[in-house]
Amino acid sequence: MATFLNQGDDCMTKGGLPKAIEWRKGELLILDQTRLPHEVVIESVTGFEALIDCIKTLKIRGAPAIGIAAAYGMVLGLASSNHISQLQQEFSRRANRLKAARPTAVNLSWAVQRMLDCLQKQHAQNQRSKNDTHEAGPSDIIKLLVEEAIKIHQEDSELCRRIGQQGLALVEKYPNILTHCNAGAFAVSQMGTALAPIYLAKEKGIEVHVYVGETRPLLQGARLTAYELREMGVPMTLITDSMAATVMQTGRVDMVLVGADRIAANGDVANKIGTLGLAVLCQHFNIPFYVAVPWSTLDLSIDSGADIVIEERSDEEITHIRDQPIAPAGVKVFNPAFDITPSALVTGLITDKGVLSPGEIIEYRQRS
Amino acid sequence: MATFLNQGDDCMTKGGLPKAIEWRKGELLILDQTRLPHEVVIESVTGFEALIDCIKTLKIRGAPAIGIAAAYGMVLGLASSNHISQLQQEFSRRANRLKAARPTAVNLSWAVQRMLDCLQKQHAQNQRSKNDTHEAGPSDIIKLLVEEAIKIHQEDSELCRRIGQQGLALVEKYPNILTHCNAGAFAVSQMGTALAPIYLAKEKGIEVHVYVGETRPLLQGARLTAYELREMGVPMTLITDSMAATVMQTGRVDMVLVGADRIAANGDVANKIGTLGLAVLCQHFNIPFYVAVPWSTLDLSIDSGADIVIEERSDEEITHIRDQPIAPAGVKVFNPAFDITPSALVTGLITDKGVLSPGEIIEYRQRS
Repeated sequence: MATFLNQGDDCMTKGGLPKAIEWRKGELLILDQTRLPHEVVIESVTGFEALIDCIKTLKIRGAPAIGIAAAYGMVLGLASSNHISQLQQEFSRRANRLKAARPTAVNLSWAVQRMLDCLQKQHAQNQRSKNDTHEAGPSDIIKLLVEEAIKIHQEDSELCRRIGQQGLALVEKYPNILTHCNAGAFAVSQMGTALAPIYLAKEKGIEVHVYVGETRPLLQGARLTAYELREMGVPMTLITDSMAATVMQTGRVDMVLVGADRIAANGDVANKIGTLGLAVLCQHFNIPFYVAVPWSTLDLSIDSGADIVIEERSDEEITHIRDQPIAPAGVKVFNPAFDITPSALVTGLITDKGVLSPGEIIEYRQRS
Repeated sequence: MATFLNQGDDCMTKGGLPKAIEWRKGELLILDQTRLPHEVVIESVTGFEALIDCIKTLKIRGAPAIGIAAAYGMVLGLASSNHISQLQQEFSRRANRLKAARPTAVNLSWAVQRMLDCLQKQHAQNQRSKNDTHEAGPSDIIKLLVEEAIKIHQEDSELCRRIGQQGLALVEKYPNILTHCNAGAFAVSQMGTALAPIYLAKEKGIEVHVYVGETRPLLQGARLTAYELREMGVPMTLITDSMAATVMQTGRVDMVLVGADRIAANGDVANKIGTLGLAVLCQHFNIPFYVAVPWSTLDLSIDSGADIVIEERSDEEITHIRDQPIAPAGVKVFNPAFDITPSALVTGLITDKGVLSPGEIIEYRQRS
C-alpha cells in the first residue's frame, strides 16, 4: 500500500514540511509518521479499514490529526448509490470502529460526532421536504459530508494559527522552552498546537530555543519534533526524557509547553506519557507549565481526569526499538500511552479563544 | 579480544548471575555489559589500555565495579622485574589514566588511591629496612599489591551483603519499589547496592515487586536490571523513565531505591541521569527516596553536589540505539551521564554502616 509520491507543493505546508494529511479529490494521502525521520513516505489510504490500521499503528498520530483523519475516514470511498438509510448504517458502523481505534484523544470522537450530526441534519431536512423536489439524494449528501470533513480540516489549520497568536507573548516572555512528544505540524494540520507559538515567534525573528524530550517509547520527540524544528530552522537540543529535571535545575528552561489529547472540565490534562512528570518538575523548579490546545480538546462532559480512559499499548513498544530487542525476552511491561496531569499543576491553557487558567474552564463550565 | 568462555562456576555469583569481574591467577575476566541482555560474553582483558577501553565504553560500569576493576587495573600485567621506582612511576601513570577515564564515580579514585597508598606503605617499609634482609623486592611488592586488589574486591562483596541487611527492614515496610539504572550485581561484585536489600528480601520469602525504569540513554535498567531480576526470580515490571510519575500517582510504588556514584559531604547525591527527577516526584507524591551505597561513596572532601564533575558523553548514545539512528541526522544533543539530587530530597542513605539521614552525614563530618 505504501507509495512514494512525487511530493508536489500541495503535499507540503507553507513552512516546507510534508503535510500529515491531504485530501485530493476523494483520495486520502497521509504521511507515514512511523517512518520519520528516516524516510518521508506519503501513502494513499485505500479504504476505511486501511485508515483504521493507519490510526492504530500511529502512521497518523496527534490528537487533532487523528480527528481530521477520522472525518475523512467517515466519507472515504462511500458508494454514492447507497440509500440514505444504508448511509446511516455505514456511518454508525464507521463511527464505532473509529472511536474504538484510539480511546484517549477527544478530537477523534469530536470529529466523528460532527460528521454524524451533519448526516443527521441532512436526513432531518430530507424528512421535512419529503416528496418535495428539494430532497437531497445520497450523492448530494455524500458531497455535503465531504465538504464537512474538508471544513473540519480547514478550521483546524486556522485554529493552529490562532493558538500561535494567543501563545506568542508567552514565548516572547519565556523563550527557552522544553516540549514533549510532538504537538507540531505532524500532529495537526498546519503549525501544530504547542509548536505554533514557537513557529510564529521564529517568523517574527524572536530568538527561541527548544529542548526536545525524545518521548519514549515511540520517540515522537526525537523522530518528529526534532525533524520539524530542524526543517523549520528553530534552534533545538535533543535530550532523553530523564534529562528534563537536570535542564530545569540548571536554569536552561523558562517554560514547558505541550499539547493535550483531552482536557476534563476541571482542567485535568490527558497527554502523552511523561507529561505529568514534567508538570511536577515545573512546580518544583518554579517554571510555568502551559498546554496548547484547540478549544475542541476540552471535554466538558468529563468531570475530571479520573474519568479519562488511558490507552495501554503493546509490550513491544517498550521492549523493542526499530524491531531490535532492548530488553530480556519475556519481561513484564506496563505501557500506558498517556498520563493525567492534575489541573493544579497547569499554569495555563493556550487555546484558540485565549489563554485560560484551569480555574477559568471551571467558570466557563458553570456559565454554560 | 572478546572471547566466549566456558563459564565455570567461578564465573557465576551464588545467585546464578554471571560475575561482572573475576580475577583468575593474574588474568582479569570481565562481563561485557554492553552486550547484555542479548549475549553473555566474558572477556579476558589483555592489558592496561584494554581495561581503560572497557571502562570508557561501559563494558564495565557501575561505581563500585569500576573501583574494583581499577584496583586490578593497577596491577594487571605488571612486570615483576621492575625496580620499585619504576613501579612507582608506572603506578602514577596508571592512576592518572584511570581517574580520567570516568570522572564522576568516586569509587574509582578511591580504589586507585588505596592501591597507591599500599605501594607507598611498602616503599616506606623498605626505606626503614634499607640494607636489611627484610627489604621486599619488586616481585614481593607486586604480590602484596595484587592481594590488596583482591581484598578490595572481597570487601566489596561483604559490603553488599551488609547494605542488604541494613536495608532489609525498609524493603519489608515498602515492598513495592521503583529503581533506576543498575545498582545490582553487575554494578558491584555480589548482590549490588540498591538491589541487595531486594535480593535479601527475596531470599527470606518477603513478597516484593520492582518497577524497573529503562534508563535512557544506555538502557541499563532494561538491559541489566531487568535481566538480573528475571534471573533471580524477583517479580518486576519494565517501564520507560517517563512512566515513573504515573506509577507513583496510581499508588503502585512504596519507595524509590537507587545507587549512587558520589555523595558530597552535605548529602547531595550524584547518580545516573534521571535520578533527580525521581527524587522530585517522590517528594511530590510523598514517597520515600532511598540511596544505597557503600560508605566509600561518601566523598567528605566535596562540600556539595555543585562541586561534582558531571561527565558528558557522546551524542550517539542519544541519537542511536543499537547502532540504529532514532533521530534526524545532525541534531544537537545534550548528554550528561549523571545528575545531582539535593540532599533535601533524600529520605535516607542505606550504607554498610547503617541507614542515615543526609543530616547525619553532616554530623559525621563535623565529628570527624
